[in-house]
Amino acid sequence: MSKRNRSRLSRRLRLRSSKSRPGAAPEASLHPSELAGPRPAIEVFAFSPTDVVSQSIQSVKEIEPLRAKFSLIWVNVVGVGNAEVMRELGQAFGLHPLALEDVVHVHQRAKVDAYESSLYIVVREVEQVAPFETDQVSIFLGDGFVLTFQERPRDNFDAIRSQLKQPGSFLRQNCHADYLVYRLIDAVVDGYFPALENIGDRLDELDDQVSNHPTSAVFSTVHQLRGDLLLLRRAIWPHREAVNQLIRDPDPRISDHTRTYLRDVYDHTTQLIDLVETYREICTDMRDFYMSTVSNRMNEIMKVLTIIATIFIPLSFVVGIWGMNFNTEASPWNMPELNWYFGYPMALAVMAAVAGGMLLFFYRRGWLSRQDDETTSKDRE
Amino acid sequence: MSKRNRSRLSRRLRLRSSKSRPGAAPEASLHPSELAGPRPAIEVFAFSPTDVVSQSIQSVKEIEPLRAKFSLIWVNVVGVGNAEVMRELGQAFGLHPLALEDVVHVHQRAKVDAYESSLYIVVREVEQVAPFETDQVSIFLGDGFVLTFQERPRDNFDAIRSQLKQPGSFLRQNCHADYLVYRLIDAVVDGYFPALENIGDRLDELDDQVSNHPTSAVFSTVHQLRGDLLLLRRAIWPHREAVNQLIRDPDPRISDHTRTYLRDVYDHTTQLIDLVETYREICTDMRDFYMSTVSNRMNEIMKVLTIIATIFIPLSFVVGIWGMNFNTEASPWNMPELNWYFGYPMALAVMAAVAGGMLLFFYRRGWLSRQDDETTSKDRE
Amino acid sequence: MSKRNRSRLSRRLRLRSSKSRPGAAPEASLHPSELAGPRPAIEVFAFSPTDVVSQSIQSVKEIEPLRAKFSLIWVNVVGVGNAEVMRELGQAFGLHPLALEDVVHVHQRAKVDAYESSLYIVVREVEQVAPFETDQVSIFLGDGFVLTFQERPRDNFDAIRSQLKQPGSFLRQNCHADYLVYRLIDAVVDGYFPALENIGDRLDELDDQVSNHPTSAVFSTVHQLRGDLLLLRRAIWPHREAVNQLIRDPDPRISDHTRTYLRDVYDHTTQLIDLVETYREICTDMRDFYMSTVSNRMNEIMKVLTIIATIFIPLSFVVGIWGMNFNTEASPWNMPELNWYFGYPMALAVMAAVAGGMLLFFYRRGWLSRQDDETTSKDRE
Amino acid sequence: MSKRNRSRLSRRLRLRSSKSRPGAAPEASLHPSELAGPRPAIEVFAFSPTDVVSQSIQSVKEIEPLRAKFSLIWVNVVGVGNAEVMRELGQAFGLHPLALEDVVHVHQRAKVDAYESSLYIVVREVEQVAPFETDQVSIFLGDGFVLTFQERPRDNFDAIRSQLKQPGSFLRQNCHADYLVYRLIDAVVDGYFPALENIGDRLDELDDQVSNHPTSAVFSTVHQLRGDLLLLRRAIWPHREAVNQLIRDPDPRISDHTRTYLRDVYDHTTQLIDLVETYREICTDMRDFYMSTVSNRMNEIMKVLTIIATIFIPLSFVVGIWGMNFNTEASPWNMPELNWYFGYPMALAVMAAVAGGMLLFFYRRGWLSRQDDETTSKDRE
Amino acid sequence: MSKRNRSRLSRRLRLRSSKSRPGAAPEASLHPSELAGPRPAIEVFAFSPTDVVSQSIQSVKEIEPLRAKFSLIWVNVVGVGNAEVMRELGQAFGLHPLALEDVVHVHQRAKVDAYESSLYIVVREVEQVAPFETDQVSIFLGDGFVLTFQERPRDNFDAIRSQLKQPGSFLRQNCHADYLVYRLIDAVVDGYFPALENIGDRLDELDDQVSNHPTSAVFSTVHQLRGDLLLLRRAIWPHREAVNQLIRDPDPRISDHTRTYLRDVYDHTTQLIDLVETYREICTDMRDFYMSTVSNRMNEIMKVLTIIATIFIPLSFVVGIWGMNFNTEASPWNMPELNWYFGYPMALAVMAAVAGGMLLFFYRRGWLSRQDDETTSKDRE
Repeated sequence: MSKRNRSRLSRRLRLRSSKSRPGAAPEASLHPSELAGPRPAIEVFAFSPTDVVSQSIQSVKEIEPLRAKFSLIWVNVVGVGNAEVMRELGQAFGLHPLALEDVVHVHQRAKVDAYESSLYIVVREVEQVAPFETDQVSIFLGDGFVLTFQERPRDNFDAIRSQLKQPGSFLRQNCHADYLVYRLIDAVVDGYFPALENIGDRLDELDDQVSNHPTSAVFSTVHQLRGDLLLLRRAIWPHREAVNQLIRDPDPRISDHTRTYLRDVYDHTTQLIDLVETYREICTDMRDFYMSTVSNRMNEIMKVLTIIATIFIPLSFVVGIWGMNFNTEASPWNMPELNWYFGYPMALAVMAAVAGGMLLFFYRRGWLSRQDDETTSKDRE
Repeated sequence: MSKRNRSRLSRRLRLRSSKSRPGAAPEASLHPSELAGPRPAIEVFAFSPTDVVSQSIQSVKEIEPLRAKFSLIWVNVVGVGNAEVMRELGQAFGLHPLALEDVVHVHQRAKVDAYESSLYIVVREVEQVAPFETDQVSIFLGDGFVLTFQERPRDNFDAIRSQLKQPGSFLRQNCHADYLVYRLIDAVVDGYFPALENIGDRLDELDDQVSNHPTSAVFSTVHQLRGDLLLLRRAIWPHREAVNQLIRDPDPRISDHTRTYLRDVYDHTTQLIDLVETYREICTDMRDFYMSTVSNRMNEIMKVLTIIATIFIPLSFVVGIWGMNFNTEASPWNMPELNWYFGYPMALAVMAAVAGGMLLFFYRRGWLSRQDDETTSKDRE
Repeated sequence: MSKRNRSRLSRRLRLRSSKSRPGAAPEASLHPSELAGPRPAIEVFAFSPTDVVSQSIQSVKEIEPLRAKFSLIWVNVVGVGNAEVMRELGQAFGLHPLALEDVVHVHQRAKVDAYESSLYIVVREVEQVAPFETDQVSIFLGDGFVLTFQERPRDNFDAIRSQLKQPGSFLRQNCHADYLVYRLIDAVVDGYFPALENIGDRLDELDDQVSNHPTSAVFSTVHQLRGDLLLLRRAIWPHREAVNQLIRDPDPRISDHTRTYLRDVYDHTTQLIDLVETYREICTDMRDFYMSTVSNRMNEIMKVLTIIATIFIPLSFVVGIWGMNFNTEASPWNMPELNWYFGYPMALAVMAAVAGGMLLFFYRRGWLSRQDDETTSKDRE
Repeated sequence: MSKRNRSRLSRRLRLRSSKSRPGAAPEASLHPSELAGPRPAIEVFAFSPTDVVSQSIQSVKEIEPLRAKFSLIWVNVVGVGNAEVMRELGQAFGLHPLALEDVVHVHQRAKVDAYESSLYIVVREVEQVAPFETDQVSIFLGDGFVLTFQERPRDNFDAIRSQLKQPGSFLRQNCHADYLVYRLIDAVVDGYFPALENIGDRLDELDDQVSNHPTSAVFSTVHQLRGDLLLLRRAIWPHREAVNQLIRDPDPRISDHTRTYLRDVYDHTTQLIDLVETYREICTDMRDFYMSTVSNRMNEIMKVLTIIATIFIPLSFVVGIWGMNFNTEASPWNMPELNWYFGYPMALAVMAAVAGGMLLFFYRRGWLSRQDDETTSKDRE
Repeated sequence: MSKRNRSRLSRRLRLRSSKSRPGAAPEASLHPSELAGPRPAIEVFAFSPTDVVSQSIQSVKEIEPLRAKFSLIWVNVVGVGNAEVMRELGQAFGLHPLALEDVVHVHQRAKVDAYESSLYIVVREVEQVAPFETDQVSIFLGDGFVLTFQERPRDNFDAIRSQLKQPGSFLRQNCHADYLVYRLIDAVVDGYFPALENIGDRLDELDDQVSNHPTSAVFSTVHQLRGDLLLLRRAIWPHREAVNQLIRDPDPRISDHTRTYLRDVYDHTTQLIDLVETYREICTDMRDFYMSTVSNRMNEIMKVLTIIATIFIPLSFVVGIWGMNFNTEASPWNMPELNWYFGYPMALAVMAAVAGGMLLFFYRRGWLSRQDDETTSKDRE
């Protein structure tokens, strides 16, 4: 567990490096010496309602001819670690240096920045299993082009790719850059649902356990889930704001037709946030319930100990008395009961009386009722 | 209990499936292969102040003649699992594909979407017993028609049906689509009151128990109630926003006359939210009160244990001393008291002094006062 | 206590019945079969700066002549359970059916509804002793009339009545419907101050107790007070919003002169809310303080038990050793110390050493310092 | 302590009496029979850049001549309990009855009320030692006059008085009523800083204690400080709103020049609120830290008790066995070990083995590691 | 630790002295008698795209010639404790007295004040190690000049200095005062990232510890971290507001070009706040997790104690019985079992039965299952 958490926290820390060094110019971060990663994989979809070309390219220069020929071109870049390619793309599409800097520093929150040359949108796609790490997806919406950057290869866009290749698909018919951008954002946002479903399943299991076999593992798992939900909430929240900005801001690059569709994405982000908050509250309730169960058990254990101890400790004292070695022969005052005819039965009777008195005391305090235990047992079934 | 919770959580998880697959086109969800459920039951009310026709129909085509003849038509569809019927209805009434998608994915929050052809309103009707599951009701308000979709048959609309059949009823006289929609929303929202009354009754019982017989079952029930209230709050909140949108947005399909009535629904949603929040706070207070009671009892039990143990443990040591077998004959230093004439009475006196000293110590610390117990007893009566 | 709480909760539950049955028309609630209560007491004040007529009337028809003769008429109705009278009043003053429905369903929150014929204001007057139940007061402000409905007779309006009868009073001189309405609202809102003073007194007492004799009764009382404050907060909050609406909304029925006075009422509602919130925080702090005191005591008790037990349990073991019956004659290895000349003194010395070692151990851990106890004692004085 | 708290709470309760009696007219509160206090001390500063007259006056009539002669006059009234003087001042300066009522009922929150004749500002000056009681200061800003009412004599305005008497001072040069009002408000608001510094010092001490000698007194002091901060927060918050209203509202009585200075006061109120909130959070953290320390100690104590008890309780049982008096002569089965040659050494060996086994069990559970203790000790140094 | 905290708290308290004395004029704080510190170090950068002059100066008069010659001049003053220099600078650049007062009282929150002569911006630069103290940086943006005041020498601006000296740098090419101000603010804001990274590293370590070796030191460290984050949050929050004000307010001194860059700084402040809040929630979760671990261990320890004690305490009683010295010869009723042939074996059998019964009781209650222990052990690995 600790291993997992560590990776999560370390990753979260990487969030900082938004600038190479405090005080450095924004442009400095695209210097080749800082970004000497491998050349990214670049994939181009150039299409119109009637035609489509899909190919992987090696050089940014191959894009220009396609762009000239088709009304809409989608360039998907996987990997953002190579300064040279970044600069070339920046020049080819007229990207603002600040936007390019944000593409490279992959810890942006979801946001929309409107530059003159293009609309810059950041969303984050989520891993669908436990650490729920998120990768930055940068989307540029410009005149006749959509340019996307993914940190690493993911399959969220596969469905869109296959539809682009089908001539009759809705996507081909709506051959507009803004509609494509909607579909890309929609695909990324919908990717959070399986992640939450995953957490929901674990909550489901946990709910069983907490009712039936509450062990300390429950608390540990709730602790993990809360951490996961914290990360997811942090990732999802800014999406709502960003999508809302796309809907409200009167940017001519987004048509009214697409805004109608974006409202649907907005509803999805609201649902996601609602779900995350609800899950967090369920986690909190479970934790409280578990803590109360622990506390109840402790109470029960203490009660048994107290009953046993308070009955037998006085009894032990009583038998200790008659175990003393005072010399009965030295004086008639020295433990004459040891020599009585009914001494032993009398001693047993005294002890029975003490025990009975104690039990009566407990009974009147209500400590002997098995009510609590029955309740607890019932809870377990 | 766990059974019940599980069903609740599983259901909540279903919330996700707003899209068949991340990346898929919104239209894809209406494909026959995905929605192959039975044909839904369709009921048509076509009416005017003077006339009414009410009938169940088999084919969507039967609607057109009625629509032509009457100024207002209400079509209620129960069941949303059949793609074919959905498509036919969509075409007949000119519904937007996104709206139709939301009708089919029955986990929307209450909302209002204004499309050109019709106003699309989602509300959720609540089950009035314990799991408090909610079903989606989709309402389309268009020119001369109201189209509603229910997930499953419910009786919330029965009163409206019967009034439609009475010639002189207010509903017949106000023969406007928007007024009918108000009545439908009102019926759904008012359905939450009995559900909350149900919870209120359980809180009432619980309040008795918590004051009189606080068992661990109380905590478990409070835990359940909190979960139920969490779900209800989640369902109710968006209604307020949606109704407010209907009142504020200058949509010509809603008349000022109806807006006055919708303000009344808005007040009801405010009351409901207020009630839910109050109940949640009452739950929290009860839980805290119960926890404190447990803690107080634990304290009381510990005190009894401590008093008994600290009196008798030293006494047991004392009697243990005179139970040692040192040979009194081997030396005059070896336990000469065993042979004293008043050895045994002296031993008893020593023990009485030890016990008395302890009691005095406890008394001065205030541990022997029965104040707390009396308080506790008083609480129980 | 439980009795009191139960009544509170049950009453709160009555909040729901805003409509006879989900789906019913709003008008249905005024049907004679549903509201067959006794005829309400109706009291009429018709006045001008120079003249006043005050009388109880039997029939609604008696109002009309007075209304014709005087510029301003105030009709106060006590009791809202008779459908017939309600209908008559509704017709006489042209009240909107929705408003009339709200008058009858006496669980509205404070609010202002502007209808064409009249301004409808709901405020809630509070009982000034412990359950702090609130009754609905409905106020209609129309052209030349003020119409008020009280659930039951209360004395909040007595001062206003007596001033109306004094010729020179400010109220007579300001012979405007809106100024009278201000005075009525002001009287109702100011009625919350004694209720809060009552709670303040109980907090005062509690503060003494919590510092001097913290018993479990404290917690129980804090629990009650929190419940009371919850109810009061719930009642007061909407008043601020309602009064603010009266001040801000440009309704011609409220003059600027009166708005100045309403700002004063607004300040009072703000003070009330502020007071309620402060009291709630004080309650929370007291509860935390009490819980910590309990926890500290438990700690102290555990320490005493531990010290006593850990000193005497080993000692008991030691004396147990020399109480064994190994036959010293069977072997020189068998407990020869029993026959030593200084066996017994040595045994006592061993025990003293064990006890001393334990005490030293405790002393070095700081468990023997009476610091905490002194602190605790000081707290009590 | 309880004494102090009681006074605080009682004072807070006085907040209510904003009106003599619910339903009474606002004007009623200035009736001589209700306000029969001693005549207040009245001090007049009449000044211009070149000249100043400062005198105590007996009769309100003495003000008129000064007012006629100087462009700006400041009247400071200490004591608000005499109805007659209040009425005279009200008439002399044309004060609104509602404002005058608020002057007399000294429990207003900081606020600004714009009347036609004058601007009415309420601020509260704070006592700089422990109960931190606040007094109401009422400021009227009118045409050529500033009129202030203090509940009791305080020294916040002393610096202003002395500057007024210096011919070259900035205050004399800026001979405008609104600038003087700014200086008065500024003086009152800055008076909160020493009060908070006082609390800060106590927090400082407490922080030492909580780390070094955490006693239950810490919790009690934190409880007090939280109460003090609650009161201060309650007093400070409305100031920010009031000052902001002065800055934003386009009232011609406040010049743009003065607004610039008021923005500085606004910054101070923001700093004060920020400080109060931070101190409250520090208090909360300290309380949690203290509670955790208590909990850790309890844990440590329980561990020692458990180790000692679980080692010696079984040993005591073992020695008890060989202390039984079965007759070894009656049967070879009856405790033959008592007569064995190595019986006693064997018994000791058995006991050593039991103790060793227990210690091994504890060691493997990690209960014997002194890690926690070392940590605790380190914390104390 | 306490040492560190103390310094933190004391420093925080210094926040107050925003005015020498309540009631004093704002101008008073620049009096030489109050500010008699050493003369500050003054550094001037006068530059244009083609030329740069960088020098330390002794007298404010040396600035004027440089200002006349270059289009943009940056004056950086380190140290604000000398009244004379402050006054000279104030006159040279036409600074408002209120702004100058704020420069000297170094406990302002980040803010923007627009004066006619210049824009006054306050930001706070943070120390990057543990106490995370912040120093005030005052920035004046005027016509052709940027004037900055630092409390003490820090290296945040070093990168900017070196770029200013490079002819081709972006900063030299964008030779505008507002762009330079953006770079200065950016440098200060980015300085918070390493501080948060530092905290993140400590959280990382802590996460390991809390999972593997939860000692009370963990809680103490979490307590410290929460305090640090509280301070950082308090420092960072106002920056967002201030930067937003720079972006939104239509001040002609900030060009649209620079606003685009400031949006980037705004994003950074949002990221910082987000990070701080997330870290605080992680701290809270860790604390809860630690507390629960302590509670679980306590439970486990209590269980072991209870099992051992409840088994052996009754057994000790039983052996005590047969250790009594009743005289078997005095009567056949007196402990005849001591003389039975199988007395001793029978006694052992009785004891075994008692122990077995107890174990069975515990087993049926589920106390003997090692489930919890295994879970706990698993957690540790």
